[in-house]
Amino acid sequence: MPELDDDIKKILRGPNFAHLGTVNADGTAQVNPVWIDVEGDRPVFNTAVGRRKERNLRRDPRVTLEVLDPEDPYGYVEIVGTAELTEEGAEDHIDALSRKYTGRDYQWRRPGQRRIKVYVTPTKVHSSVG
Amino acid sequence: MPELDDDIKKILRGPNFAHLGTVNADGTAQVNPVWIDVEGDRPVFNTAVGRRKERNLRRDPRVTLEVLDPEDPYGYVEIVGTAELTEEGAEDHIDALSRKYTGRDYQWRRPGQRRIKVYVTPTKVHSSVG
Repeated sequence: MPELDDDIKKILRGPNFAHLGTVNADGTAQVNPVWIDVEGDRPVFNTAVGRRKERNLRRDPRVTLEVLDPEDPYGYVEIVGTAELTEEGAEDHIDALSRKYTGRDYQWRRPGQRRIKVYVTPTKVHSSVG
Repeated sequence: MPELDDDIKKILRGPNFAHLGTVNADGTAQVNPVWIDVEGDRPVFNTAVGRRKERNLRRDPRVTLEVLDPEDPYGYVEIVGTAELTEEGAEDHIDALSRKYTGRDYQWRRPGQRRIKVYVTPTKVHSSVG
């Protein structure tokens, strides 16, 4: 498993959007902005049961995350990896992400919505940052 | 072909990065930041012969473009479509894009590099902007 260097981790810890690529049932790419963080060497994001990206991940856990370097208009990091989905800690995690990006706990909970925490184990890292 | 409304065109005309999703040979999603513009109802970006995204597009022209709304932290547009590649006008086009994003003509030409202009004909538009 490739390690993430400090420059990459700094970008993942900042309030920067990641652009998540997943694969649709018809074989096309889906791209969504997601809030992102990192635990150890694994990027982590959050979604909810039933969303298209969640259904895509259960069908094919191979993902790509692309994040622009906020300090360099030509810098970005692309992390290719495998997603692992869990409900454990997912509620606390969406609040923590929300505080990072909006300054307060997550405000958009819906009745019955089940949050999912997604860990990405990197298999390939391409970076032009640092 | 879905039309792009004025709010979407405004975002595509501004100096905002698009996040391009293409499909790799192994069926995974590739995500790259690209400079973007719009001609009529077709988003247009630029690449070069031999790059991975160009090879992906020749194998499978189905693409997804995602662009954040710079005026709304939760707004973004996702355009799914089919790519058409041409060398015609591609050199002028990379200069025009470069002027929009950097204020001057494209500075990174390499000997022998052939630029490609890519038109995207939308098949589906998902937008939370405007």
